[in-house]
Amino acid sequence: MRFFSDNAATVHPAVLEALAAAQPTDAAYDGDAISGRLDAAFSDLFGRDVAALWIATGTAANSIALATLCPPHGGVICHHAAHIQNDECGAPEFYTHGAKLLLADGPGAKLDVAACAAVTDAIGGGVHWVQPHALSITNATEYGMSYAPDEVAALGEWAKAKGLGFHMDGARFANAIVHHGCTPAAMTWEAGVDVLSFGFVKNGGLSAEALIFFNPDLAKVARIRRKRGGHLLSKGRFMAAQLLAMLADDIWLANARAANAGTARLASAAGQRALYPVEANELFLRLTADEAAGLRVKGFDFYDWAAGEARLVVSWDQPEAEIAALADALALLP
Amino acid sequence: MRFFSDNAATVHPAVLEALAAAQPTDAAYDGDAISGRLDAAFSDLFGRDVAALWIATGTAANSIALATLCPPHGGVICHHAAHIQNDECGAPEFYTHGAKLLLADGPGAKLDVAACAAVTDAIGGGVHWVQPHALSITNATEYGMSYAPDEVAALGEWAKAKGLGFHMDGARFANAIVHHGCTPAAMTWEAGVDVLSFGFVKNGGLSAEALIFFNPDLAKVARIRRKRGGHLLSKGRFMAAQLLAMLADDIWLANARAANAGTARLASAAGQRALYPVEANELFLRLTADEAAGLRVKGFDFYDWAAGEARLVVSWDQPEAEIAALADALALLP
Amino acid sequence: MRFFSDNAATVHPAVLEALAAAQPTDAAYDGDAISGRLDAAFSDLFGRDVAALWIATGTAANSIALATLCPPHGGVICHHAAHIQNDECGAPEFYTHGAKLLLADGPGAKLDVAACAAVTDAIGGGVHWVQPHALSITNATEYGMSYAPDEVAALGEWAKAKGLGFHMDGARFANAIVHHGCTPAAMTWEAGVDVLSFGFVKNGGLSAEALIFFNPDLAKVARIRRKRGGHLLSKGRFMAAQLLAMLADDIWLANARAANAGTARLASAAGQRALYPVEANELFLRLTADEAAGLRVKGFDFYDWAAGEARLVVSWDQPEAEIAALADALALLP
Amino acid sequence: MRFFSDNAATVHPAVLEALAAAQPTDAAYDGDAISGRLDAAFSDLFGRDVAALWIATGTAANSIALATLCPPHGGVICHHAAHIQNDECGAPEFYTHGAKLLLADGPGAKLDVAACAAVTDAIGGGVHWVQPHALSITNATEYGMSYAPDEVAALGEWAKAKGLGFHMDGARFANAIVHHGCTPAAMTWEAGVDVLSFGFVKNGGLSAEALIFFNPDLAKVARIRRKRGGHLLSKGRFMAAQLLAMLADDIWLANARAANAGTARLASAAGQRALYPVEANELFLRLTADEAAGLRVKGFDFYDWAAGEARLVVSWDQPEAEIAALADALALLP
Repeated sequence: MRFFSDNAATVHPAVLEALAAAQPTDAAYDGDAISGRLDAAFSDLFGRDVAALWIATGTAANSIALATLCPPHGGVICHHAAHIQNDECGAPEFYTHGAKLLLADGPGAKLDVAACAAVTDAIGGGVHWVQPHALSITNATEYGMSYAPDEVAALGEWAKAKGLGFHMDGARFANAIVHHGCTPAAMTWEAGVDVLSFGFVKNGGLSAEALIFFNPDLAKVARIRRKRGGHLLSKGRFMAAQLLAMLADDIWLANARAANAGTARLASAAGQRALYPVEANELFLRLTADEAAGLRVKGFDFYDWAAGEARLVVSWDQPEAEIAALADALALLP
Repeated sequence: MRFFSDNAATVHPAVLEALAAAQPTDAAYDGDAISGRLDAAFSDLFGRDVAALWIATGTAANSIALATLCPPHGGVICHHAAHIQNDECGAPEFYTHGAKLLLADGPGAKLDVAACAAVTDAIGGGVHWVQPHALSITNATEYGMSYAPDEVAALGEWAKAKGLGFHMDGARFANAIVHHGCTPAAMTWEAGVDVLSFGFVKNGGLSAEALIFFNPDLAKVARIRRKRGGHLLSKGRFMAAQLLAMLADDIWLANARAANAGTARLASAAGQRALYPVEANELFLRLTADEAAGLRVKGFDFYDWAAGEARLVVSWDQPEAEIAALADALALLP
Repeated sequence: MRFFSDNAATVHPAVLEALAAAQPTDAAYDGDAISGRLDAAFSDLFGRDVAALWIATGTAANSIALATLCPPHGGVICHHAAHIQNDECGAPEFYTHGAKLLLADGPGAKLDVAACAAVTDAIGGGVHWVQPHALSITNATEYGMSYAPDEVAALGEWAKAKGLGFHMDGARFANAIVHHGCTPAAMTWEAGVDVLSFGFVKNGGLSAEALIFFNPDLAKVARIRRKRGGHLLSKGRFMAAQLLAMLADDIWLANARAANAGTARLASAAGQRALYPVEANELFLRLTADEAAGLRVKGFDFYDWAAGEARLVVSWDQPEAEIAALADALALLP
Repeated sequence: MRFFSDNAATVHPAVLEALAAAQPTDAAYDGDAISGRLDAAFSDLFGRDVAALWIATGTAANSIALATLCPPHGGVICHHAAHIQNDECGAPEFYTHGAKLLLADGPGAKLDVAACAAVTDAIGGGVHWVQPHALSITNATEYGMSYAPDEVAALGEWAKAKGLGFHMDGARFANAIVHHGCTPAAMTWEAGVDVLSFGFVKNGGLSAEALIFFNPDLAKVARIRRKRGGHLLSKGRFMAAQLLAMLADDIWLANARAANAGTARLASAAGQRALYPVEANELFLRLTADEAAGLRVKGFDFYDWAAGEARLVVSWDQPEAEIAALADALALLP
């Protein structure tokens, strides 16, 4: 019973069906009819004109987004636990040609204005210091918390006042949306977000994420960067088809609801052991080595995090029985 | 009837079946069992230990290959019509951090030792000139010719003597292999090739090419570069499965044979109009604007190349009837 | 008797005197009073508001200029014999983060609109090709020719129509100005030039070139790039002082006049052997190996260029006697 | 009376004399006889064969050093207050093509093994995290402390065990040597340092620092990077001459002794106000805004650092009377 990550889950059947349906030859790259429907589909979803690019990974989406917002000699404010800082092998530095990540602090990998301002306040003027050009937050965060729209808006207002671009890493965007029950618009452009990495793969997709520009003009150079990064697949229709399949019938929301609900059930069973509020599909627990070993004996697979801590992730396709079994096991812990 | 490119053809049914079969959750990235079979499968094919990485595009494969062979301050010798020079939006410069492509000349986008030596002879020593570090050839070439193993070996010997790494862009490697009826080994490492971009997408794949290192040690940093380029998909098993499906039952060879045979038939019908020897699945023709228009009226879709020239590409899945119809139409030209 | 280059000549005494005069401590970097006079001094010279940055080498000046005009994914049109292509170890690619030099042809390393248009005409649209963003010419050229103001203006008009930035590598700008007897304004911004690398070191300076932005706004990021390239010296007053010393009393013009005049005298003696019109301080000659050896026996030091060709360069400080001796020796050649 | 920095002090007269003496034309770049003496001069100083490159700034020296030790996808451990992190506008990221600075903590900008190990212990394996490739320390530190040889050796041993390259930013190397009274060898290669940025400009030079490779093979690519960065001045003899002038008669040591002694005198006067041990030529003090204003009224110029803190720097050429006056003023503070 795998609770180690949502990034290797199965693919939603509708996605595989969409691949089969995309077979007929069409123009290459993103010149095909299916790719041609992306902008409209996401514009509908967000309630304004957006430019939407398919892209194979969240790492590439984040990095191209940041390269759009920040020059090589600039800096990007982010949490020190952010995926872009720790888990992408320096891809943001690669795509931005050496921009610096400026690290802020906050509980649960979540930032607020004070935390961001502490970073900018410490930076001198002139040409000697790398100057901040963008702010990047992750929603839901790397520790399973999620920003509410008004929290995003407070950061967006601050970023705008500082002249910074605003990026949201939404690898688990769906889980955040479901948790807050808000519109995608409220969570993004209405709150000042300029670019969104909209994750689908963890949530049932196969190999397509969406990179959303709320100012479609910004997408022009991003399309060049996508090609230059080797990310413009020749049979792009199979990428677009995945995204449209996930949007159809709100599969993306249903999948996130399932994962969040399962996580909430585990959190409830875990009680005071939770290290952070559970606001998406990840649960971080205090867990001794013996307790962890005991759970593994029962067949539960998960990651140790720090000493005495563990991470449990519920996937969109997690069987009900596995969640129930784990909840029972957690409830039995002392 | 589309003859404009093979890069948007359909996907071989076995590939789609392989995706469905890869559904069960396994470890993420390339830690899954299917990815774990790649090295052995390609080592079998090449008759020696190789490291094989799945990667989404030929552009990424080529660029990571070149970054492995050439430092930022080095140069890569290639034909001025090479895909890496003209069609990849500077991805080689991006992945190598600014290495320079050193352009050589030759008919049909094909290089020989004299052409390469003309480039190196013109380069001064010392730190002022960019020094060559690698040679890259395309087989089959961008103009549908293909190197025979002994031609590759002559270049390989020269490259080795000059201390240059040797890369082969094999976006249409299968077509070259089929044309010469040789082993993959004879065309590559036995001829001095260090790294091969082994194309599958034009030949029936969906979104997976293979990057083959004949010295497996070179793959170590390439795996890092793949991640850093945002190309390490989390559900990598679906990438590996495509490649294994194409190798199984020699689908990759059967598909290339079909495409080459169709092209040969067209070449035969076109007679003296062919601009280059037809040694793969591309046919370049002298064709007036009126003649081109006439063919299009009959339903044939293809690219104009230069003034008075056209390119016809036969895909692996090209219906027999389309080939016959185009052959007839070509034969009717004056 | 050294005729191999002007790049290792002595330093004009006024420059050394200016260094001594710059001793008193002032603010660091370019915050000192002497650096503060540069903009005004060059604005006077060019008859409009310019931003002027001191910088240690022509390579750095050229590279920062190009990085200002061209994004990493863009291209710069230049002659295939340009210094930026052959003699700077890829510094333009380094500072631009991988932009591509797009090579044009023309006699004597000189470009015209037709040569430039041949480059742009061969480039396809879309994201697959590197798109041109700038044009760079060298005046005087690497082969000792020089553009007249109207020739520059024709290129400037074309560049503007194409949306390209326009850079002039003026490592020997003074020699071109003196040859044409025109104003610095006529040769640059009045002809559409956006950025000028204004050379002083070959012409009597020690270690300071000037980078001139005719649109001062462009200098803002260039100042950041100068720092990021490690080119913002802490005792910058000694850099600015060199430039002001060279401008004072028109030393820069006097030095170039001397060098040009000496070269003209040699050209006159060499007669039909000259390979290119002599329009600056370089003379390229047809010269057999025996003839070259004969000159060297007489004490003349110079570079062989290609087979049967030699390059002679006259420096600003070349003794009259040396020029006379070489002129005599050339006149004696059969 | 300027105590704001040593980076804009006057140039030692011997350096100016050396410039005048270097006038006679010689080969360009670093092919001249004076540049040719550098390796031997620094090998003598360090008691082993070293490669020594002149370079215009400490920023360039540090960045090229780090690029030699760390690939684009690697990381460099340094203090969060290090000059390479805060004061070089991202030059290390530029020259390394995007390597990441991995920030460690310690009092007075000084690191020990525990602080460095805390950084490496937090880094996961595999390709997702940026892996450390080098350690960089500053000696004397940015807060005026200095490592003793055995402290450097402890770090060097740890770095070697971890497979990390070891760089020392010696912008104030002379001050550290003088403070500890040790040999340059003991402070560097005997303690495991691979590359040293050996500062001369703050200590009486004009525009030349030295980049010292204790493994001369490493210098080969560094020479290429120096050219590629636009740092290979054509009249390099004037760079080498500065360094040799500073080494002659141990001027570099005498100057540092003077600066350190002046600082010690100020520290003694300041008593308990000193924030860090004074081990070079910088003094950081607790100082209220009123107290700072009072000192400025008396004619002392210095930087505020953080709230309630000030930095005083004594230069090599600081007049005795200024030091005495400031010492008196400090002693009068309550």
